[in-house]
Amino acid sequence: MFEPNTTPAPLITLLLLFTTLAAQAQIIPDDVSANAVALRNLAMRDSIAYELVESLTMEVGPRSAGSAGDAAAVAWAVQVMKGLGLQNVRTEEVRVPHWERGSISAHITAPFPQQLVATSLGGSPATLQEGIHAEVVRVESLNELRALTSDDLGGKIAFVDHIVERAKDGGGYSAASRIRSCGHYAAAERDALAMIIRSAGTSTHRVPHTGSMLSNSIPADIPAAALANADADLLAYQLKTGKPVTVHLKSSPRYLSETTSANVIGEIPGRGELADEVVLLAAHLDSWDLGTGAIDDGAGVAIVTAAAKLILDQGDAPRRTIRVVLFADEEFGLSGAKQYNRNHAEIIEKHVIGLEADFGAGQVWKFSSRVAEDALTIIDEIHALLAPIGIERGNNKASGGADLSPMRKAGMPVFGFTQDGTHYFDYHHTPDDTLDKIDRDELNQNVAAYVTAAFIAANIEQDFGRLTPDTRRDRTCSATDDDWET
Amino acid sequence: MFEPNTTPAPLITLLLLFTTLAAQAQIIPDDVSANAVALRNLAMRDSIAYELVESLTMEVGPRSAGSAGDAAAVAWAVQVMKGLGLQNVRTEEVRVPHWERGSISAHITAPFPQQLVATSLGGSPATLQEGIHAEVVRVESLNELRALTSDDLGGKIAFVDHIVERAKDGGGYSAASRIRSCGHYAAAERDALAMIIRSAGTSTHRVPHTGSMLSNSIPADIPAAALANADADLLAYQLKTGKPVTVHLKSSPRYLSETTSANVIGEIPGRGELADEVVLLAAHLDSWDLGTGAIDDGAGVAIVTAAAKLILDQGDAPRRTIRVVLFADEEFGLSGAKQYNRNHAEIIEKHVIGLEADFGAGQVWKFSSRVAEDALTIIDEIHALLAPIGIERGNNKASGGADLSPMRKAGMPVFGFTQDGTHYFDYHHTPDDTLDKIDRDELNQNVAAYVTAAFIAANIEQDFGRLTPDTRRDRTCSATDDDWET
Repeated sequence: MFEPNTTPAPLITLLLLFTTLAAQAQIIPDDVSANAVALRNLAMRDSIAYELVESLTMEVGPRSAGSAGDAAAVAWAVQVMKGLGLQNVRTEEVRVPHWERGSISAHITAPFPQQLVATSLGGSPATLQEGIHAEVVRVESLNELRALTSDDLGGKIAFVDHIVERAKDGGGYSAASRIRSCGHYAAAERDALAMIIRSAGTSTHRVPHTGSMLSNSIPADIPAAALANADADLLAYQLKTGKPVTVHLKSSPRYLSETTSANVIGEIPGRGELADEVVLLAAHLDSWDLGTGAIDDGAGVAIVTAAAKLILDQGDAPRRTIRVVLFADEEFGLSGAKQYNRNHAEIIEKHVIGLEADFGAGQVWKFSSRVAEDALTIIDEIHALLAPIGIERGNNKASGGADLSPMRKAGMPVFGFTQDGTHYFDYHHTPDDTLDKIDRDELNQNVAAYVTAAFIAANIEQDFGRLTPDTRRDRTCSATDDDWET
Repeated sequence: MFEPNTTPAPLITLLLLFTTLAAQAQIIPDDVSANAVALRNLAMRDSIAYELVESLTMEVGPRSAGSAGDAAAVAWAVQVMKGLGLQNVRTEEVRVPHWERGSISAHITAPFPQQLVATSLGGSPATLQEGIHAEVVRVESLNELRALTSDDLGGKIAFVDHIVERAKDGGGYSAASRIRSCGHYAAAERDALAMIIRSAGTSTHRVPHTGSMLSNSIPADIPAAALANADADLLAYQLKTGKPVTVHLKSSPRYLSETTSANVIGEIPGRGELADEVVLLAAHLDSWDLGTGAIDDGAGVAIVTAAAKLILDQGDAPRRTIRVVLFADEEFGLSGAKQYNRNHAEIIEKHVIGLEADFGAGQVWKFSSRVAEDALTIIDEIHALLAPIGIERGNNKASGGADLSPMRKAGMPVFGFTQDGTHYFDYHHTPDDTLDKIDRDELNQNVAAYVTAAFIAANIEQDFGRLTPDTRRDRTCSATDDDWET
């Protein structure tokens, strides 16, 4: 029986009205939402991200800028991207510093002789071959260090004993990393022979925490090293006895000639009129030399590469080009990110959004952004699709991450996926940054978050506006500097 | 008003009857119980045990047999015992082996070159100066190793990849420690050049686990080393690729001449006719060289010394002599315990009970014993005073601990205080065995348990009988050996 007109007219009217209203209120089309949700759900039970970080850590391992591992990582990334089917896979040369850690020994020689577990800070010069043997002066902060004079520190070793508190947002790291980056300036100005610091991390294990020193000279002016937390406890205890404490520090780090590394780039080309616009998925390929770079930043490499792979396998080309960039040398000064920003200066305005993963593989619990105000409705809509995987709505002040900072400062909007960092600083920059610290399910939840947001950004008509260019200078170690990035 | 006879006669009768019955059923006199409870409660809020282990770890630190730290530890213990007011403080010479760790490097050279974090096993010889560079053959157990032949292992490196499972009773350690103790025999018999094992511990950190090899020759026949768990993962991963995996192992441990250390002894002399009987409080003073020996066995030293100090301060001399013995060289073959057993062979029968602390500072959760059957009522009564601090009643099969084993085998009864070992093998025998792993409240609960039991044992009329002498041979590495102590 043919009954084309049996539906009452008033109901049809109502449905049409509803559809129209929905279309007006909703920026993300239903089919894009549906595909994003399908990708999100697929990511939650996928294995590609774990396989990627497993392969990178087990087959390449440590890959600090300029090292043999760095070159191996670039070759690995090219092969992986091509193997996964990304297009326009290419490298982009980046000049990088090449600092080698060498060896280190540190001993308390009085009042109670004991060995200390230490590691040189990135950029530190070597001690003389016979080492530095001097009395230790302890302070708890950069301000306390700056309150001392050459009378206090001349010919001595400055010990900055600042304890990093554990926090979900990793907030305790900021002050500690500033000591690590800048303490040696203040110590050297006051004629100290060396600086040692308590590790800028929360590990209770005998693994010290490295990281780069900011420096105007190469190598930096005085040797600097970090003690494992238990060793800082030991030194602090001996100092509390009131007896003079002397330490013998001997280390052999050195700079080799600046060399060439590369950003590795692969794409899913867009289709149609938005194809020249870019959704930028970013992580960094280098790592510190002590661990195998699993959480920093093998996880990020895996998350963004897996997100691209899922979108590729989903079939339809996105409207915008999705570009994965694995940056060279984040750790020693963002060389790759700065080079990318220079190389692509003319098309940074075509980078409609950047998504960086560089805080491990802990569960994403907050989605924030830094986009134009009138794009916040899109952020709300994306968040609605992320809420089911346990993600709260954040504010519009996301930093976007270190590697994206040159492009963000040039006006590129960014998303921010805040991961649970409760244990991040137990492993970060230490020998303990190894594959076993990554939980597969948490890693997959990260992929789910990134793939959802990236897919939507690449497939909706609207963009996220532009940010006001940020022309503030980079961070420095000036005593009055108040724009240190956190 | 004087009213001596106002209490009704029947009530007096009832009280007398009750007292009589109680006296018959109860071995521990009320005043002894009351004093034991007072000591127990005092121990729970005391600070002496923590101060002792803090001082030992921070001021002496590593103290492996024969080292400078060993001598410093003996001097420390004498000074501490005298300072606390113990009597008859003395040392008893013990000949000890003196093995030095030297340095080690281990690298995978193919298929994916990476450095491995490793440490030599105690007693290992050095590799040749150019190291051992050979293919690796992986097995998961001692039985699998023994199933191989020279055709499989000749000229290669045996890798025994056994994973220790975490357990409250530390039970996973037994099989792993047997591999560490005996694997090299089986590997050498099959012409392997070296043995490497996965650490016999549960740590997920980049800190390998040392421990002694059993050996008929000094040094042992082939070099042996343990990999940190993450490094064993790495080696296992590369082996799973099916490609030949080669490792370059280079190490320089060595034996120096046998030397002299000492057991350190201090007493609270008994009074009256039981004064020649001994309640033995035991721990070991030596430690491995990698950490500062906080949980193994600084905690034990602190627990038994603090227990003695509390009894001393309580005022009245005990009926039996309480003797604290801090044994030399537990780790490298129980040298101190065996020497003590030889030196005091004639009066071991006067040692009515032994209490050893050598499993860290985790909460005691079970009180067991190995005493004559007819003394079990006393154990029940002691347990009743331990139950309020969270301690269950165990069986009568306690081992009593490694250092007490020579005396136990000679017939001395022992108590057993089972500590929570869930995290013990995260730290034990690794660089991570440092003071920060000790919780003050848990340490105090240990002292409370030991002081309660020791005080009662020293002050009751009854003793604990004698054990049937155990004449079984010491553990060996025979393939058919079934009396390996767990």
